[in-house]
Amino acid sequence: MTTRVTLQDVADAAHLSLATASKALNGTGHIAAHTRRLVQTTAQELGYQQRTAAEKRIVRQQSGLIGLVSADLEGRFSMPALAGAEDTLGVANHAVLLTNSRGDPQIERNHIDQMAARGVDGLLILGGETDARPPVKPSTVLGIPIVYVYAPSTDPADSSITVDNGLAGQAAINHLLGQGRTHIAILAGPEYYAATKDRVKGAEQAMAEAGLRFSAPTRYGNWHESWGRVATNLLIESGEQVDGLYCLNDMLARGAIESFLEHGIRVPEDVAVIGHDNWSVTATECRIPITTFDNNMREMGRKAARMLLSAIKGRPQRGMTLMDCSLIIRESTVSKR
Amino acid sequence: MTTRVTLQDVADAAHLSLATASKALNGTGHIAAHTRRLVQTTAQELGYQQRTAAEKRIVRQQSGLIGLVSADLEGRFSMPALAGAEDTLGVANHAVLLTNSRGDPQIERNHIDQMAARGVDGLLILGGETDARPPVKPSTVLGIPIVYVYAPSTDPADSSITVDNGLAGQAAINHLLGQGRTHIAILAGPEYYAATKDRVKGAEQAMAEAGLRFSAPTRYGNWHESWGRVATNLLIESGEQVDGLYCLNDMLARGAIESFLEHGIRVPEDVAVIGHDNWSVTATECRIPITTFDNNMREMGRKAARMLLSAIKGRPQRGMTLMDCSLIIRESTVSKR
Repeated sequence: MTTRVTLQDVADAAHLSLATASKALNGTGHIAAHTRRLVQTTAQELGYQQRTAAEKRIVRQQSGLIGLVSADLEGRFSMPALAGAEDTLGVANHAVLLTNSRGDPQIERNHIDQMAARGVDGLLILGGETDARPPVKPSTVLGIPIVYVYAPSTDPADSSITVDNGLAGQAAINHLLGQGRTHIAILAGPEYYAATKDRVKGAEQAMAEAGLRFSAPTRYGNWHESWGRVATNLLIESGEQVDGLYCLNDMLARGAIESFLEHGIRVPEDVAVIGHDNWSVTATECRIPITTFDNNMREMGRKAARMLLSAIKGRPQRGMTLMDCSLIIRESTVSKR
Repeated sequence: MTTRVTLQDVADAAHLSLATASKALNGTGHIAAHTRRLVQTTAQELGYQQRTAAEKRIVRQQSGLIGLVSADLEGRFSMPALAGAEDTLGVANHAVLLTNSRGDPQIERNHIDQMAARGVDGLLILGGETDARPPVKPSTVLGIPIVYVYAPSTDPADSSITVDNGLAGQAAINHLLGQGRTHIAILAGPEYYAATKDRVKGAEQAMAEAGLRFSAPTRYGNWHESWGRVATNLLIESGEQVDGLYCLNDMLARGAIESFLEHGIRVPEDVAVIGHDNWSVTATECRIPITTFDNNMREMGRKAARMLLSAIKGRPQRGMTLMDCSLIIRESTVSKR
């Protein structure tokens, strides 16, 4: 049997009452800033932090409330994840408290404080991009289990879930190779996104494994259809011979397809074009329906909620969970004939 | 001074104890179904229902919780409204409890029951279309204030807020007339949507006021870009002369523009095309950016939340509140030159 540090130990070490120590750590009541810091430092030194979640589970009646903090309430990535989380939590009879942090760390902190005050059992924190983000400060969450969704935490000890963009990049190239394409290029969005880097890296790896090199330099720009058109016009004007184009989202793919068709270049006969995101309007409404990857965001939301429920029961799944994207094959890479 | 019916009056009239009458109306405790019905009927006959909200405000401590019931968590109409509601409620220090009814009345009822059990102060009920919907049963909500958003309630005594599609239809035609167009036609989605009917009616009214008739029959189909292309091909093949086309959403407008351009018909020089919804990807990414109407859904969400907060304070705004759409003028109706 191991000896565990209790809140009483922290209070004793700081020469304070149990009530004051509790208030200081829980952010309730009026406590002088220096007292709060003293308690927090003492708790940290004694290693109290680590067992708060377990203690809370015993001490506190579960509220059945889950806090869902979204960075982007109108986002087309976070929304399906939010819907998926609600799928799981609704069935598990948990109520969802929703807030919009607008990606602002200060607002996020305030919202989490308010949710903690309402006694949430756990927090799902949804980002709008796959770029890793700093974790919420321990002094803010005080042991409430968290799962980071889509935008993972930079702390490997946290529970995070996102998509495996590297694997998707590999799969994109392998699909093009499988269609007999060997003159391949990438049309990308902004270079600094993790999604961009991971997909490009995966694609490079698959090309290297096939003993091939890209037939044109990767063109970076933005995520808009207009850039897809412009970049493809540049590609055509350059005279670079390409029979497979991996576009890092569906809007780029749509712009590329429109540009190829305008220049009398057939898709997929002359160039196979593959996109990313399976955004229905863009991918299916294009004159040539687009082969693309579905990020399975709704399923990710469901899975994240299950991970959180498990963490609340004391079985956290630490580290990064990567979910596979699904390849949806349409006419832009495989001719109907 | 008016005499108001109290819960005691209802209990007396039903020959029951105050506690039983309260339980029956609040859905708490174990009450036989016939007793519940008796109390509900008696309450209705005595006109007790109308003041439940006011009583609850006195009796019950406000929870600061607002229930948000969405019919469509991934919907591109309800999501901005949800974000707008959160804007207002967050600032007002109300927490938002979110559930997804998936448009199923039974699920909606269950979710509202659970929210009532958590003591929500009010409910925002978001629909995915402007078609009116039956109100939630009084026995389910028992006096909790409700505002119906986007999909209004069929009961004119309820508080509802949606867009004024009739006015938008008029404004669309008047904009085309203002650009010197007199040979006008409508390209529509499904005929049975309230949004379709209201926009067409508004357009017809504006044409009648201008002493004009449509130059082609209104073509009904679905909301997809492909139908926009097909319908416009039909229009061109028919030989009907049109210099202004009112498309009832942006995807139809985009399909129409693509079809016109393919046939060498210039937009807007030969035909001005106007859309609806200001869906950024479709409206701005089209080769000819699309003049369209913004439904101001986020502002609607904010306004709905203010209406609800007002109702919670005992000042409900009954009936239908119609919000204006905003005309966003782009190149599809007004040439840059």
